[in-house]
Amino acid sequence: MPTNAPLQRKLRMGLIGGGQGSFIGRVHATAAVLDNRAALVAGALSSDAARSKASAADYDIALERAYTSYAEMATAEAKRADKVDFVSVATPNHTHFEIAKTFVEAGFNVICDKPMTFDLAQAEELLKIVEKSGVVFAVTHNYTGYPLVRQAREMILNGELGEINAIRSNYIQGWLRTRLESGDQKQAKWRTDPKQSGIAGCFGDIGTHAYNLGRFMTGLLPTEISGHLKIFEDGRALDDYGTALIRFDNGALGSVTASQISHGRENDLSIEIDGTKGAIQWRQEEPNSLIVRKNGDPHKIYTRAGGPYLGAAAGASVRLPAGHPEAFFEAFANVYTAAYDAMVKRASGETVEAVNTVYPNIYDGVEGMLFITKAVESSAQNGAWIPFRHAKSRR
Amino acid sequence: MPTNAPLQRKLRMGLIGGGQGSFIGRVHATAAVLDNRAALVAGALSSDAARSKASAADYDIALERAYTSYAEMATAEAKRADKVDFVSVATPNHTHFEIAKTFVEAGFNVICDKPMTFDLAQAEELLKIVEKSGVVFAVTHNYTGYPLVRQAREMILNGELGEINAIRSNYIQGWLRTRLESGDQKQAKWRTDPKQSGIAGCFGDIGTHAYNLGRFMTGLLPTEISGHLKIFEDGRALDDYGTALIRFDNGALGSVTASQISHGRENDLSIEIDGTKGAIQWRQEEPNSLIVRKNGDPHKIYTRAGGPYLGAAAGASVRLPAGHPEAFFEAFANVYTAAYDAMVKRASGETVEAVNTVYPNIYDGVEGMLFITKAVESSAQNGAWIPFRHAKSRR
Amino acid sequence: MPTNAPLQRKLRMGLIGGGQGSFIGRVHATAAVLDNRAALVAGALSSDAARSKASAADYDIALERAYTSYAEMATAEAKRADKVDFVSVATPNHTHFEIAKTFVEAGFNVICDKPMTFDLAQAEELLKIVEKSGVVFAVTHNYTGYPLVRQAREMILNGELGEINAIRSNYIQGWLRTRLESGDQKQAKWRTDPKQSGIAGCFGDIGTHAYNLGRFMTGLLPTEISGHLKIFEDGRALDDYGTALIRFDNGALGSVTASQISHGRENDLSIEIDGTKGAIQWRQEEPNSLIVRKNGDPHKIYTRAGGPYLGAAAGASVRLPAGHPEAFFEAFANVYTAAYDAMVKRASGETVEAVNTVYPNIYDGVEGMLFITKAVESSAQNGAWIPFRHAKSRR
Amino acid sequence: MPTNAPLQRKLRMGLIGGGQGSFIGRVHATAAVLDNRAALVAGALSSDAARSKASAADYDIALERAYTSYAEMATAEAKRADKVDFVSVATPNHTHFEIAKTFVEAGFNVICDKPMTFDLAQAEELLKIVEKSGVVFAVTHNYTGYPLVRQAREMILNGELGEINAIRSNYIQGWLRTRLESGDQKQAKWRTDPKQSGIAGCFGDIGTHAYNLGRFMTGLLPTEISGHLKIFEDGRALDDYGTALIRFDNGALGSVTASQISHGRENDLSIEIDGTKGAIQWRQEEPNSLIVRKNGDPHKIYTRAGGPYLGAAAGASVRLPAGHPEAFFEAFANVYTAAYDAMVKRASGETVEAVNTVYPNIYDGVEGMLFITKAVESSAQNGAWIPFRHAKSRR
Repeated sequence: MPTNAPLQRKLRMGLIGGGQGSFIGRVHATAAVLDNRAALVAGALSSDAARSKASAADYDIALERAYTSYAEMATAEAKRADKVDFVSVATPNHTHFEIAKTFVEAGFNVICDKPMTFDLAQAEELLKIVEKSGVVFAVTHNYTGYPLVRQAREMILNGELGEINAIRSNYIQGWLRTRLESGDQKQAKWRTDPKQSGIAGCFGDIGTHAYNLGRFMTGLLPTEISGHLKIFEDGRALDDYGTALIRFDNGALGSVTASQISHGRENDLSIEIDGTKGAIQWRQEEPNSLIVRKNGDPHKIYTRAGGPYLGAAAGASVRLPAGHPEAFFEAFANVYTAAYDAMVKRASGETVEAVNTVYPNIYDGVEGMLFITKAVESSAQNGAWIPFRHAKSRR
Repeated sequence: MPTNAPLQRKLRMGLIGGGQGSFIGRVHATAAVLDNRAALVAGALSSDAARSKASAADYDIALERAYTSYAEMATAEAKRADKVDFVSVATPNHTHFEIAKTFVEAGFNVICDKPMTFDLAQAEELLKIVEKSGVVFAVTHNYTGYPLVRQAREMILNGELGEINAIRSNYIQGWLRTRLESGDQKQAKWRTDPKQSGIAGCFGDIGTHAYNLGRFMTGLLPTEISGHLKIFEDGRALDDYGTALIRFDNGALGSVTASQISHGRENDLSIEIDGTKGAIQWRQEEPNSLIVRKNGDPHKIYTRAGGPYLGAAAGASVRLPAGHPEAFFEAFANVYTAAYDAMVKRASGETVEAVNTVYPNIYDGVEGMLFITKAVESSAQNGAWIPFRHAKSRR
Repeated sequence: MPTNAPLQRKLRMGLIGGGQGSFIGRVHATAAVLDNRAALVAGALSSDAARSKASAADYDIALERAYTSYAEMATAEAKRADKVDFVSVATPNHTHFEIAKTFVEAGFNVICDKPMTFDLAQAEELLKIVEKSGVVFAVTHNYTGYPLVRQAREMILNGELGEINAIRSNYIQGWLRTRLESGDQKQAKWRTDPKQSGIAGCFGDIGTHAYNLGRFMTGLLPTEISGHLKIFEDGRALDDYGTALIRFDNGALGSVTASQISHGRENDLSIEIDGTKGAIQWRQEEPNSLIVRKNGDPHKIYTRAGGPYLGAAAGASVRLPAGHPEAFFEAFANVYTAAYDAMVKRASGETVEAVNTVYPNIYDGVEGMLFITKAVESSAQNGAWIPFRHAKSRR
Repeated sequence: MPTNAPLQRKLRMGLIGGGQGSFIGRVHATAAVLDNRAALVAGALSSDAARSKASAADYDIALERAYTSYAEMATAEAKRADKVDFVSVATPNHTHFEIAKTFVEAGFNVICDKPMTFDLAQAEELLKIVEKSGVVFAVTHNYTGYPLVRQAREMILNGELGEINAIRSNYIQGWLRTRLESGDQKQAKWRTDPKQSGIAGCFGDIGTHAYNLGRFMTGLLPTEISGHLKIFEDGRALDDYGTALIRFDNGALGSVTASQISHGRENDLSIEIDGTKGAIQWRQEEPNSLIVRKNGDPHKIYTRAGGPYLGAAAGASVRLPAGHPEAFFEAFANVYTAAYDAMVKRASGETVEAVNTVYPNIYDGVEGMLFITKAVESSAQNGAWIPFRHAKSRR
């Protein structure tokens, strides 16, 4: 059981967004406290005052800390002795930047939904602000929190698969098969609206996760991207399908395919990675197993706690014995607890790793925005290969 | 999001057991607060005073409510205005009865681990005490909390599978393949010790779950049982493998096989049910799908939120969209929230259903002890069929 | 490519049964010639003269060798210089004995469908006749022909799983869910008719396969059986569901469950075997993989030709590289080719192994009849354990 | 059971290639006679006279029809009254053209391995020759022979999936992970040698299958292709990995990924197709099921003979009841039997469909060569989109 031992207390959390009717806000609130290392004590849950108060009760937030604007919250909390240690940003994309900037500049740690900002320029600016402030800044590329995803990263960084040649990651959904956004579906509305989502739809919403997963697992650095985005539903304003190819600096070839128009597909993020010594395969909908293959050996299925073959990273991310399935919430919580470890370290005055963190960080967030931007740019140029690399990137 | 609306506040939880090093206590504590409908405020976490205090901090329990005995706790809590609404009993089998009795008689609701008591006599006595007191009493046959298990029950009770002919449930583990109990493994030690576990080992620990699952899904009432228990590890005192056959009053035939000596098997509880109109299949390690079959139709895979085919019971048990996997903790939490609904109802003065509850209850607990007792009794008589039915049983 | 090298020619096959409309006759004819080691040259395909001639053309049998009775065929073929080397018996159960007896006594090798005879007395008598004659006699327990089934047997006999404790085999079908036999369905009619099928329905038809599979894989010898057969379809004359428990002489416990009333289940024969050092799992509908488990190791999936881990028995049973799936016909053909090897050896004057053959033999056939007989006998005695062992049995 | 009824006899087959040590020749010989509609009676199995004779014995070919050159065979067979009805070409790519040309010009039907020729020019020339001659010419894109592949084609052409938007097909193998060709591995040697294989390695060998599968299932016509081929094994002369994107004329986007360097992957051809009304998924290594999905419905698994939901095309391609698995040989044989139907029709003087045949034909063969050529061409131009469409293509 990980704890906040040096700090001698639970962390205090603030939540931006997540008012009644919200999905992802509830996920943040649940994941953040799963291990009882934090308590949700303040929030700007809604800009509507009545709704904000009503939502506060759901979360057990005292009324005086249920704010109606994030700005008000930042100011008020900064003055408190028991001020929040971090805020979680669970609002639509186009609002992330201002909120994150405000809290980072006020010295609060931040956990921010992805895509991190509305556009790349905001992301670059936010990066500077975070670097200057030194706060812990995590981005919820939550699928990196699965124990067996961390196992894959550890194995690859340890060289168990040899040199990596190929990464194939797909993220296939079907819920936007029809134009839900023309009705009342709130989730569909903002995701397909360029004013709220930015330049990409499906690629921003889920393509980034698929790209991030391969980057997190392998640490390979990209050099070029060729993007091919499509809109299949008539009248839709943003892509609902697409493929990008990525060249990595060691010569590897990657592909990312994202779809929101595949009938009956739920949340089917999967990845295959080929190395010179071995290959792995993982699928989010069955997260408790990782297939590891080597020519001449039987196919091997690793499970969460199957034995000595499991590495430290996965082992530290597990709450239950193998066979007692863990899932989405636990992975989400693992991103939180890794960020907590960093927050506690920082509060104790220790130096905190910034780039190659266990949790997805500001650099991953910037890279996600760069991926979206370059994929769209290439797509507009008929899929031309265009340079693609951020100056600072996780390995 | 379910709430405790009529009560206007979170429920207050007490925990018995669950001190540092405990597994199941942590599961209870996590599941109980997953939806923020309860807070853990008191506990008798350990009979060792120092360990009790240390554990309290982990759970964020105030020191003055960290008791060193359940008896002390019951007395002290009864006097408080903000006394706990319920206690969760997460101690070894042989202690359940005295603890549960104490709290029930003091008017507290109870959520108790399974097997419910050390022996059948205790179970019968506890039943009388609970019936007299009228408290809400839940038994954590946690696998009933999976949405698709509830879906199966709903479909069967609605007649979608027709008359049920056969139930095959298996619970296969491998962790007791060697005599772990001869070393320091605490979990193995008490489970294989007749003084702590009672008359059955594997059958009491997991066979009851497999039996309960079939009963919960179908509501069929048993009439006779034939038990065949085995000890495969030399020197072990209790069964580590076994099969029981069960005759049901509509003529159906059931089988329950439980193993703790099957290499590499983790927590493989599975069930197949055949009816005259359809058949279903479900497996705990992949809990987010339910296979439904009818001759002449394609095999159908139901998922948690796939569409209009999903019934109310499953729908109400879901926190995340399909494809975002839910797992063990959520199912465990679903047992809690169903019990919360009953507790809130009771606190509001409403009548509460006792037998056919959504959560597994005292009657299921008694039936579990009866199952163990009769399986062992039959096994001692070379598998002779012996009558098997409790006077009060869920349908 | 296995050949008949010492014989310098293809084997000549005769077929009894298999006239137009037959299913299993066509399977025999296809499997027998799959490797071009035999040619179908004679047959008593139907007792109806016109149908016999018409069917002969389908099989490319010369009209003068298309007989209208097996007796006529035995007499005529015995006189020919190019007489058939063996006959395949693909007629309903109740006719097997007379046909097999006739050909064995005339010195022909025989490949006979299962169940081998109508009742146990016939089986015992046939055994004597076969032993006296010395012909090669194979029984088409065809599922033993799958490469990975043979791999399992080899691993177990080599001790790779340690001492075997438990065998669980299930054979689940759904096609007799309704009373097809009340209509025109020929396959259903004879299988549910005691005059043609004998004392068992489902247990004779498929329960024997499930029992045989465990025996073939492990070589464990049975000591006692407890049978529980059921008829679930109103008005049916023979069992359509049942479970038998088997005690083996090393203390192991086996279970066999067979069903023909499970909606949507096609031909779902599966088996799990637990040993002290490892465990295996195999399923006929996905025959190209074998799951091998050991505590502390990843789950391992063996495929047909995956590498050096595959033993000689499996290797010799494979026609295609792994990933190019092989299936039912190939397994059936593997029974044939193993019998061919014995026939060629016998024709060359070499001594031929009789009991522990690669192909299922007369002793397996007798044991199958004994299994049916004792399961029914026990079931009639309310599942009493009754002794169960044949004097001569494969190890 | 399909027959050659109008012809009143079995077809006579000749085999080119397939001498001792050959893999694919044996597959042709086995598949061709699986239903006893043809007999192998002549062959040019090897250019080495001794080996040719020895191989003839394996196949049961009379010595006078065991030729040592295809040219000799064409001349000799043409003079016989009982000349072969067709020849199967199972030699390395670079020899296909001359052989096929010789037999087609001599009026023989031909069944030819893929890729059909060494280069596109040969393919175009062969097309003219075949069109002129009017013979039946099949190309063994054998995976189209699986019943559920044909089912998918039928469903899509019937509009059951609506308008098709996306096709994702992958063909992943691992056997060329190391430079096998530097040793004695014959299969590896010619496949990686530009003089025998042509301009592509992996893409010619298996990429064509993956492309063909999508085309066969959907009938969508391509307009442009963007290819990205890689050589990952140092020193190898031809691609061993690659991805191509394809634009179809209805706006759909396709992707084909082929690998021969993915550790432990055997023969993993898979495809996903998204339409506006439904989506399907199929995988060659588990060929007996087809997943069909529609939003709001359960996932559906179609099996080979599961019921009335199965269409005519699949139904006619099945030899065994569902649950009795069929596999690679049967699918291969289905290509043969569809070609036989056409041969028999042609022999009876009937008009034979040329383009939209059940079996893959000369047009598919040409399109396969075009696919290879254009993928390589685009890859050499850094993945530029280049026009891609043959004048005559299957719909």
